[in-house]
Amino acid sequence: MPKFFLSAEAVTGDTLVLTGEQYNHAKVLRLRTGDAVIVCDGRGTDYRCTVSEVCEGQMILQIDSSGSSGSEAAVSVTVYMALPKGDKLEHVIQKATELGADAVVTFPTARCVSRPDEKSLRKKLERWQKIAASAAEQSGRGRIPEVRTLPSYAAALKEAASADLSVLFYENEEQRTFRSAIEAAPFRTAALMTGPEGGLEHSEVMQAEAAGLQICTLGSRILRCETAPLCALSALMYAVGEF
Amino acid sequence: MPKFFLSAEAVTGDTLVLTGEQYNHAKVLRLRTGDAVIVCDGRGTDYRCTVSEVCEGQMILQIDSSGSSGSEAAVSVTVYMALPKGDKLEHVIQKATELGADAVVTFPTARCVSRPDEKSLRKKLERWQKIAASAAEQSGRGRIPEVRTLPSYAAALKEAASADLSVLFYENEEQRTFRSAIEAAPFRTAALMTGPEGGLEHSEVMQAEAAGLQICTLGSRILRCETAPLCALSALMYAVGEF
Repeated sequence: MPKFFLSAEAVTGDTLVLTGEQYNHAKVLRLRTGDAVIVCDGRGTDYRCTVSEVCEGQMILQIDSSGSSGSEAAVSVTVYMALPKGDKLEHVIQKATELGADAVVTFPTARCVSRPDEKSLRKKLERWQKIAASAAEQSGRGRIPEVRTLPSYAAALKEAASADLSVLFYENEEQRTFRSAIEAAPFRTAALMTGPEGGLEHSEVMQAEAAGLQICTLGSRILRCETAPLCALSALMYAVGEF
Repeated sequence: MPKFFLSAEAVTGDTLVLTGEQYNHAKVLRLRTGDAVIVCDGRGTDYRCTVSEVCEGQMILQIDSSGSSGSEAAVSVTVYMALPKGDKLEHVIQKATELGADAVVTFPTARCVSRPDEKSLRKKLERWQKIAASAAEQSGRGRIPEVRTLPSYAAALKEAASADLSVLFYENEEQRTFRSAIEAAPFRTAALMTGPEGGLEHSEVMQAEAAGLQICTLGSRILRCETAPLCALSALMYAVGEF
């Protein structure tokens, strides 16, 4: 069933109205009077609706029932990814949304090649948030992951360290497994941090450990910077019993 | 350290010679006399070598020591992916190689849109195998995954069913988790099968079950066809203790 996100404020009474981009999307899907759709408030509630009227530029929906969207993980995971080159972050945002992440946060590290200025970053951020929204609709999420940028590696470490489970994946770590970190204690929030194409500098890894992150391996094979966060997220969702 | 794959037959005595594409790659890496490299025979053995001579079109390596490459998983996993549109299979081959798959097999299903003729498929296969080889070098694998095509869904089911653990992931399966399949019995070989963009038909899922595959969910979110196999592979590698 097609799914649309509307802000929680848009839900008043027993009808909803799709306008603008949402209306255009509904037209592309050829929705007609009587068709069933799901509208999500982006905070975990789904409304089952029926199209009751289509007029120029707006589609009116009748709310039939509502309930928990049921597709949100019990654990809230934030992916912290050092800003990669090209469109790799777009790829990670799309996939991390499908895989159930609650937020994707990017930040600079010593070996990051991409150094966008503030204006360019603002524009990118807008695009990234749209990718998250679109992936959330397509994968049937109950929530649109938030995409954010942080100005420094130190800021990212500080924020990540505040999660119940905070892990930095490092290709030169051979001993400590992700499993050992996951199984050490129960957690409701998790921060998964990975480096850029050229990897993290050893001093940065020390800095992360000092900040309270656990340094873990993702196995003996070297993963690309865009593969590592998705591998870790998939494994975490498996570990907490999502599938 | 740079890694090159040579056929096991190329290893005779205590020297090795890089020629052709391997030589060109070594030149790009600016390797010089005295530099250390690893040469892998693609069957799980790594040779630690030193560049002893560079002449026009060939680079001669001295073998210093050899041993198990140590980067192969204890479980042999084959990814069976219904032929997707565009370059999605290339993406999956690259990532599945990093994540440790031993083979990637593609085949047609009822809703596959891409229907290449034999000649075009042969050409694609050559390209896919090159992608696997390149990803194997970059991720430090001890083996280059084999990329193969099968002529029918029935042939894919028959082959997949012969693995110790054979799973088909289906978005409408809500009960049986991947974990229950993984934990049911020990296994040395695993087959992970996923459908195309439009999903599998219900009759195809019944056919898979009849062939002996377990039908499992990957969670309550709908994954894109290129995300599902990599999510499953990551989770499996975690489950068997790879990281």
